[in-house]
Amino acid sequence: MKTTVSIIGGSGYGGGELLRLLLSHPQVEVKQVTSRSHLGEYVYQVHPNLRKRTSLKFCDPAQLEAVDVLFLALPHGQAQGNMEQYAALAGKIVDLSADFRLRSAADYAKWYGEAHRAPAWLERFTYGLPELRREQIKTAQYVSGVGCNATASNLALLPLVKAGLIDLDAPVYVEIKVGSSESGAEGNAGSHHAERANVIRTFSAFGHRHTAEVIQELGVKNVSLTMTAVDLVRGVLATAHARVKPGVANKDLWKAYRAVANENPFVRIVKEQRGIYRVPEPKILAGSNYADLGFELDESNGHLVSICAIDNLMKGASGTAVQCLNLMMGWDETTGLEFAGLHPI
Amino acid sequence: MKTTVSIIGGSGYGGGELLRLLLSHPQVEVKQVTSRSHLGEYVYQVHPNLRKRTSLKFCDPAQLEAVDVLFLALPHGQAQGNMEQYAALAGKIVDLSADFRLRSAADYAKWYGEAHRAPAWLERFTYGLPELRREQIKTAQYVSGVGCNATASNLALLPLVKAGLIDLDAPVYVEIKVGSSESGAEGNAGSHHAERANVIRTFSAFGHRHTAEVIQELGVKNVSLTMTAVDLVRGVLATAHARVKPGVANKDLWKAYRAVANENPFVRIVKEQRGIYRVPEPKILAGSNYADLGFELDESNGHLVSICAIDNLMKGASGTAVQCLNLMMGWDETTGLEFAGLHPI
Amino acid sequence: MKTTVSIIGGSGYGGGELLRLLLSHPQVEVKQVTSRSHLGEYVYQVHPNLRKRTSLKFCDPAQLEAVDVLFLALPHGQAQGNMEQYAALAGKIVDLSADFRLRSAADYAKWYGEAHRAPAWLERFTYGLPELRREQIKTAQYVSGVGCNATASNLALLPLVKAGLIDLDAPVYVEIKVGSSESGAEGNAGSHHAERANVIRTFSAFGHRHTAEVIQELGVKNVSLTMTAVDLVRGVLATAHARVKPGVANKDLWKAYRAVANENPFVRIVKEQRGIYRVPEPKILAGSNYADLGFELDESNGHLVSICAIDNLMKGASGTAVQCLNLMMGWDETTGLEFAGLHPI
Amino acid sequence: MKTTVSIIGGSGYGGGELLRLLLSHPQVEVKQVTSRSHLGEYVYQVHPNLRKRTSLKFCDPAQLEAVDVLFLALPHGQAQGNMEQYAALAGKIVDLSADFRLRSAADYAKWYGEAHRAPAWLERFTYGLPELRREQIKTAQYVSGVGCNATASNLALLPLVKAGLIDLDAPVYVEIKVGSSESGAEGNAGSHHAERANVIRTFSAFGHRHTAEVIQELGVKNVSLTMTAVDLVRGVLATAHARVKPGVANKDLWKAYRAVANENPFVRIVKEQRGIYRVPEPKILAGSNYADLGFELDESNGHLVSICAIDNLMKGASGTAVQCLNLMMGWDETTGLEFAGLHPI
Repeated sequence: MKTTVSIIGGSGYGGGELLRLLLSHPQVEVKQVTSRSHLGEYVYQVHPNLRKRTSLKFCDPAQLEAVDVLFLALPHGQAQGNMEQYAALAGKIVDLSADFRLRSAADYAKWYGEAHRAPAWLERFTYGLPELRREQIKTAQYVSGVGCNATASNLALLPLVKAGLIDLDAPVYVEIKVGSSESGAEGNAGSHHAERANVIRTFSAFGHRHTAEVIQELGVKNVSLTMTAVDLVRGVLATAHARVKPGVANKDLWKAYRAVANENPFVRIVKEQRGIYRVPEPKILAGSNYADLGFELDESNGHLVSICAIDNLMKGASGTAVQCLNLMMGWDETTGLEFAGLHPI
Repeated sequence: MKTTVSIIGGSGYGGGELLRLLLSHPQVEVKQVTSRSHLGEYVYQVHPNLRKRTSLKFCDPAQLEAVDVLFLALPHGQAQGNMEQYAALAGKIVDLSADFRLRSAADYAKWYGEAHRAPAWLERFTYGLPELRREQIKTAQYVSGVGCNATASNLALLPLVKAGLIDLDAPVYVEIKVGSSESGAEGNAGSHHAERANVIRTFSAFGHRHTAEVIQELGVKNVSLTMTAVDLVRGVLATAHARVKPGVANKDLWKAYRAVANENPFVRIVKEQRGIYRVPEPKILAGSNYADLGFELDESNGHLVSICAIDNLMKGASGTAVQCLNLMMGWDETTGLEFAGLHPI
Repeated sequence: MKTTVSIIGGSGYGGGELLRLLLSHPQVEVKQVTSRSHLGEYVYQVHPNLRKRTSLKFCDPAQLEAVDVLFLALPHGQAQGNMEQYAALAGKIVDLSADFRLRSAADYAKWYGEAHRAPAWLERFTYGLPELRREQIKTAQYVSGVGCNATASNLALLPLVKAGLIDLDAPVYVEIKVGSSESGAEGNAGSHHAERANVIRTFSAFGHRHTAEVIQELGVKNVSLTMTAVDLVRGVLATAHARVKPGVANKDLWKAYRAVANENPFVRIVKEQRGIYRVPEPKILAGSNYADLGFELDESNGHLVSICAIDNLMKGASGTAVQCLNLMMGWDETTGLEFAGLHPI
Repeated sequence: MKTTVSIIGGSGYGGGELLRLLLSHPQVEVKQVTSRSHLGEYVYQVHPNLRKRTSLKFCDPAQLEAVDVLFLALPHGQAQGNMEQYAALAGKIVDLSADFRLRSAADYAKWYGEAHRAPAWLERFTYGLPELRREQIKTAQYVSGVGCNATASNLALLPLVKAGLIDLDAPVYVEIKVGSSESGAEGNAGSHHAERANVIRTFSAFGHRHTAEVIQELGVKNVSLTMTAVDLVRGVLATAHARVKPGVANKDLWKAYRAVANENPFVRIVKEQRGIYRVPEPKILAGSNYADLGFELDESNGHLVSICAIDNLMKGASGTAVQCLNLMMGWDETTGLEFAGLHPI
């Protein structure tokens, strides 16, 4: 018998991507999908790729029935006010929003500019990035989603932190380039195509909220995320600049990156001497759950450039959420996430 | 002494482009630019290309002073309610909107779905496409703007109609591909970058309002405009499909197109046998006032494909408006419109 | 035991897409992939989406071993010279190139400008579009691929021809807009990004080779395909302009299109009154095998606009080839082709 | 009487842009343009924007006649072998290539990997960035061009260096995002549209040749340029990460940036609290000669983000070359460079 799931907030990009994945997941039956703004519409009217794939309609959150696993894909700040109600509906919950990513209510207040409304729930959640917390997720009842920019940053830095190759107190600059789907389905004046096409727009020099997830999860204290929008729909590239500890050489880096790639089915190393695709690029990752990693070390001065590419809606959000589901349910971690991505695209 | 002009409705794309052109026009002094939504802001905050070029601020329409020429760049439907007031401010008016393009109130009602509110003004306006009505524009007091899609269609068909090479009663299909700036600065759900990038979206199969301008100006009775949005900001390509009269051959077409190109400084024929740019393309026209024309005749069956490429904000709107100004004032027709366009872009 | 397959010509876009599909096909084992230009390289060095999915290397065509099914993905004109050799390797062959699409050597010579080198093989091949020839494909030993533009045109016209709603002798204009992957992995001067980005470039007014497939398969004698390149990598949109027979109304069209959609698992009707995605669009089809159909009828004059959107590398090439494989082997027609496509992308 | 000029190497992007500018320069007459690969073709066949603007054809370099000013727009490495010959043709030379940007033959050998073939000429050239060397350029006989990435970096750092706000020995990371025109008209496998569209591709982690120009001109010793290609044709954005000296505050930065903007007609500060365009963006600079500067200071730790946006073919190459011409000839510095750029585009 299949595991039943429902999605709260299914009309956004994260919710739609999650729905696509769960509809074709062999172990799962999607029961309900909610949307206030599209109540009563067929889900394929909002997510046209799902036409002829499902006859589900968006329903009211008040009509939700009990399921095995509940996914929350609401705009940030909405889930925290209703956790008791959601917990009554399902034994396991995966929340894609930012509401339960941080362990400390103080950190939440600092980075999100307001007090958390359900601080007692913070400690019940596990940060949902399997590459960092696989074992905890396996036994977790409540799992948070991940920030897409945080994920690209965390995975770019993971091999370095895990192998102790950089000083955690030294400054780390992460330059992040992102596509337009990151800003959500709602859009704003600046996301109008005529204004958003052809851009290289640095919209946050430092202080981006996802920074908190890098500090919390990796312990890199002096890290700065600089965000630049480019002309692309899906994709994040994080280019992290750090200084390696004295004596660290290329072979140490290869070892550290290989270890992470070997331990994680969705991590690949991309570092080629020839061909067109020599480094990690989000271009070829659309729809796939891979995180591609690469690096370059300037041995003359210890300047390390570590690169991570992901699809922000997949590895940066919904793909990782399904990966967490697989772990929570004891299924193979890659179930339902087999799509290889397209070339060219 | 310079000719004084003001622009009503300067925060939209058409108004902004007009402002750019007029600010660098050697014979013109821009006195005022209005915008209700951006009242009091520097115009360069809305049109960032004008930074360091002007210290004008958007003012209230109620504060307008008398000028030599008034430009109206309001959303369609707004100018017609205030013509008496505008006429009191300036002896000459150029209206970029659709309000005074059609000569017949009945046609306006048919294509715009509502009665015209100032029908007496319709006959006072001259349709502002110099390639069709140069002599009338020279002596006109009131000149209407042109629809961008109508202009691409009219210029694609002009050589054929002028030389009598096609039957005016036979069906003519014009397939038009357009960029996102055509839909205006306001945008809508479908113009959000994530939804609008990578599209080939046929948004109007027939019945587009600009069709009325083609019927009126060229007398092609059975013409249909099919509109498709593509991933581009500026540009229109009209590909007209018609059948030539029996016996019409390539040499007749060359003669007809050359005649139009020779008579009009902004019309060029693009028909090369080699190189990358063999046909008219809007890509290289951004910012220029050229209309590039080309054609192909299938001599086996008389199927003619006539192509016109323009920048919708220049030749399709503001560039043509300045061209009209030049004619109305007795200046060289190309003054202030010398920008050649960029390659590559 | 799995069915064994090999691909001749695996480094092009069609071959790469085919490889991606076959590597994840549950009934298939990919034995060998050839490429002369990338001999000895890992396939993931050319098709970076396949990294961590296969350790296959490109091999020499001379090293091919016998398999159950052989796929040919060579540039047009190369397969016809080696059919005896290929036939000795496999009992079933699917050829993606244009070599065996036409049934008549005379037609081939007319459209391809040279004599066919293996005319005796022409009649042994079945045209490989299941929506037209499903039953024949099921028992075929040799199946040809389909032209991507021909497929979009054939499917746009199929409901009309099947239900007898248009006159087969009257002119039909098909305006086709295409992405850059259609021109193949080799590229040319005009495909350089700086020259190819932002284009609306009509590169063939009439006489495109794929026209022959529309004439042959649907019997629409007076059909013209006009090709325009736009800024997109994957996707084709065909907009067919025809005149319906007197008396044909919208309800007749609905019935005809619904019949085709009901009979074919990969055909969908897209015709919505609200939302962003009201018409067929290739944007959301990247990686999926769907052909989305829509139509608009101008009842005042019988002008019908029929629209078909596909991914040129999937439904227009490799996806249809796998669909044919499924039919030839007696498997479910949709096996290995379940990917829904992405939104947004 | 107009000043006569010729261009050697006019078929590339830099040469074409230069030609466009010089053709409309009021003080200049273009005599000849050379191209070996397009010998005898009209220049508008290669640069289609110049159709109806000039009847010049590409001529052979051997046919060059004497002129007042000679522009060299050859691929890097070619000019240095022919300087004596060029110097015999004109008293003033502006070379856009990299051949004479560095003052030291040793530096050239280090960064370009080969010995300079005309080291004696190095000291005769002045580095052609007016914002750095205006007075020298005014009296120079030979002026070098500038690297586009170097220019974006130099201008991002200029206010900081000039006002002494950063430590010249501390590490400075400059993250540079670039469009496809930067790689030149020749292209390569990776510049094919299907492979180059939608990219965020970090093609140089450090060690880019333009770094040498930043070290030489600003004295920032420990600077690293990291290059990432994005989906855009024209434009460079440099985002420089540095640490300000202790005590430096926002007001000091404002003062330093304002000073540079005030002294230089093509430098603007972009730092807005509202609107869409709050920071420097290359999007709106296509065709303009402006360099837009902005900055953000994290006062908690001294992390400064300084941003510079330019059009790589204008301020980053040909626009600056014309600016140098104006200075060398004693004309107004902005002559022929008045184009404001487009919004939207």
